[in-house]
Amino acid sequence: MTIASIRVATCAAALALSLSTAQAQEKPADKASAMSILTDLTMEVSPRMAGSPAEAKAREWATARLKALGFSNVTVEPFTVTSYVRGYESAVLTAPYAHKFAVTALGYSGTTPDGGISGDLVYFETLDALKAAPAGSLTGKIAFVDHAMRPNQDGSGYGPYGNVRRQGPAIASQKGAIGIVIRSIGTDQHRNPHTGATNWPTGTPPIPAGALANPDADMVALIAKTGKPMKLSLTLTGKTTPDLPSGNVIADLPGRDPSLPKILVACHLDSWDIGMGVIDDGAGCSIVTAAALKAQAGGKTLRTIRVLWAGSEEIGVFGGAAYGKAHASDPHALAMESDFGADRVYNVKFNRLAKPVADKVKAVLNPMGIVPNADKADGGADVGAISDAQKLAVIDLSQDGTRYFDLHHTPDDTLDKVDPAQLQQNVDAWAAVLKVVANEPGQLIGE
Amino acid sequence: MTIASIRVATCAAALALSLSTAQAQEKPADKASAMSILTDLTMEVSPRMAGSPAEAKAREWATARLKALGFSNVTVEPFTVTSYVRGYESAVLTAPYAHKFAVTALGYSGTTPDGGISGDLVYFETLDALKAAPAGSLTGKIAFVDHAMRPNQDGSGYGPYGNVRRQGPAIASQKGAIGIVIRSIGTDQHRNPHTGATNWPTGTPPIPAGALANPDADMVALIAKTGKPMKLSLTLTGKTTPDLPSGNVIADLPGRDPSLPKILVACHLDSWDIGMGVIDDGAGCSIVTAAALKAQAGGKTLRTIRVLWAGSEEIGVFGGAAYGKAHASDPHALAMESDFGADRVYNVKFNRLAKPVADKVKAVLNPMGIVPNADKADGGADVGAISDAQKLAVIDLSQDGTRYFDLHHTPDDTLDKVDPAQLQQNVDAWAAVLKVVANEPGQLIGE
Repeated sequence: MTIASIRVATCAAALALSLSTAQAQEKPADKASAMSILTDLTMEVSPRMAGSPAEAKAREWATARLKALGFSNVTVEPFTVTSYVRGYESAVLTAPYAHKFAVTALGYSGTTPDGGISGDLVYFETLDALKAAPAGSLTGKIAFVDHAMRPNQDGSGYGPYGNVRRQGPAIASQKGAIGIVIRSIGTDQHRNPHTGATNWPTGTPPIPAGALANPDADMVALIAKTGKPMKLSLTLTGKTTPDLPSGNVIADLPGRDPSLPKILVACHLDSWDIGMGVIDDGAGCSIVTAAALKAQAGGKTLRTIRVLWAGSEEIGVFGGAAYGKAHASDPHALAMESDFGADRVYNVKFNRLAKPVADKVKAVLNPMGIVPNADKADGGADVGAISDAQKLAVIDLSQDGTRYFDLHHTPDDTLDKVDPAQLQQNVDAWAAVLKVVANEPGQLIGE
Repeated sequence: MTIASIRVATCAAALALSLSTAQAQEKPADKASAMSILTDLTMEVSPRMAGSPAEAKAREWATARLKALGFSNVTVEPFTVTSYVRGYESAVLTAPYAHKFAVTALGYSGTTPDGGISGDLVYFETLDALKAAPAGSLTGKIAFVDHAMRPNQDGSGYGPYGNVRRQGPAIASQKGAIGIVIRSIGTDQHRNPHTGATNWPTGTPPIPAGALANPDADMVALIAKTGKPMKLSLTLTGKTTPDLPSGNVIADLPGRDPSLPKILVACHLDSWDIGMGVIDDGAGCSIVTAAALKAQAGGKTLRTIRVLWAGSEEIGVFGGAAYGKAHASDPHALAMESDFGADRVYNVKFNRLAKPVADKVKAVLNPMGIVPNADKADGGADVGAISDAQKLAVIDLSQDGTRYFDLHHTPDDTLDKVDPAQLQQNVDAWAAVLKVVANEPGQLIGE
């Protein structure tokens, strides 16, 4: 069945079911636009925490939408995960001044009693300062770790400053702390803290670990400068929970020659529970899906394009790992992922892509203001396992991340943050690239 | 005692008490700067809800600081108020899609049971649409009222759109609604709803009344357009509570001729409980206080300058009313208030000010880029009672309100939102005006 006929059928069904005027009036083609996919997903299933019933509902939603859009082989590939189930959250400074802070638990935080824990709050200006604290010096205390992340177009603050979240809690635990709060790994100034997963190396007992909103972290830093002792009461009753259902959704737009290794385009369907999962990563799913459809709008591409809406990325890239394992012997040629918001693509990077193909890609992106970058493409978290295993060619279409970390992993990850024009620029850039690579008869994988 | 000697004494005391290095190193004059007053108040007593223990602590803080800065007759004038004591708050859409909204109760909201209330959610695009709903049409239902407030430099959206908050709940109650949620009266797009007081005319039973953050209100509007019935579960357990202690703090910088009617400069000390009370209205208190000190930095002004840090403004201007009553026979000449944030003064308005004095004020403001505006000055809420009673001259130094309603009555009213340069411009403008009016020997009150 062609895409066009599916669209007509969808429209007819909508009319027959006497759905609302607004829906009935929507042009059928609109259901294939990135903004439509993103809006509907956000409205109907938002947020979608890894391992939650909402994530399961999102897989159903994705299956139905991808089928309605004309994808083939639409399949849910289930797996189980250990995830974090949020509880009651509170952080109150009780000395030297009273402040009720905006706090959120980090994923995999330790659990406090319902009444919380209390202790001296010890200020560290940097992660290095925490690392330098003597062994045992935090016994019975709660650590606060500050940092100085600033917005960059390439998002390059997230690597180094993100280690405060990834590593800080374990380091504090190892030094005897009973809890830790960090400055949110983010670049905004709103009372919406940034969550995200932390890591506990084997043998390190998890301790309650939260992030304060940046204005609250400012207050901690301001009070710390007075030299007066600080005390914090911290309550984070959420629990790390094993054996939760998750899964990937995969769907194909078959190519004219299905024997050729396919093109894989990915995003992740799960989202943090405190936001609406729009820029992270409903946007990515809407971009890769709309772009795949656009790449075949004039007819099938030579190679099959597969979309992967991965599950459980946020808590440890479990979906990407499961895909890599399940499809280890399934031939792929090239992988790409969209997982950095909805702002415009501004540069392109390559890895292992044959130079003549890379040159064609550069040529189609040049009129769109997208510049080549000599750094090696990363590919994205969810295509990491399959790309590494099969040594796939990889292309990164780097998005402008200047405001990404204002919103990332916060309640503010909502639909209004998306600029439809920039979202569409992503689709156009992706479609242009897919038309090149999915119609390439020769070798895609280069040096 | 001169201001200078007070400052030396303060510094010496700080050193003697072996306070922190940061405090000891602070220059004594800094304690008189607006940024210092605002920072210390925010750090030490924030927020300061009307009628709360924190507001009482703020009166103690204000008394100590104003005395330390060299003010005379520093006095707390107590009164009691009926205020709103916040409880647990939750708003969950249960049909046609599940969404947990960011909600805050309006001041004087009705109280739900601990388990909340549930009902059909009925969408109204405007307050007029709610008004047009037939009598009884909302029986057993929850109303949602939308609006289209946008930022303006003069804050002029707050009047008309603010009526959704002020009047909407009573109108919904009168039509049988069991509850109401409104789009926040604000211009931002963050998951931080805007609180504020609502009004219940005699005979109108209070119903639970909350405001949704604007991204959540967007979601309600989006779902409403599908035509699918919506259901909301709303829990707002806060309570309207009578007989709570409040009070005004007044302090004078005596003039060379105390027999002349004094100049009154006001702000309010109370703040909404969900923010930190910085732009509303710690900034105002810091501006008028620093400006009064600056106006007398070169020696006493002719007239006494009185500062009024009013209590319980947010919930009904109780402090202003109490001041008007207590000081009805106390001669004043002119009143001004700062209660619109910390951004720059951009125009000046007058009411009942003698023209020659107004011309002098215009002349000193002209080099600061502050333009005269022909509209009549309002004076501000807390000086309203005394100004009306005594027919005082009034000057408004209008502040740029473009971003004021991004922050107003939200958790985001925090110290980082203040631009120190713009705060200082306020002080400079106020001091320039005070030097004119407080040194005016002739009649201040004109037509």
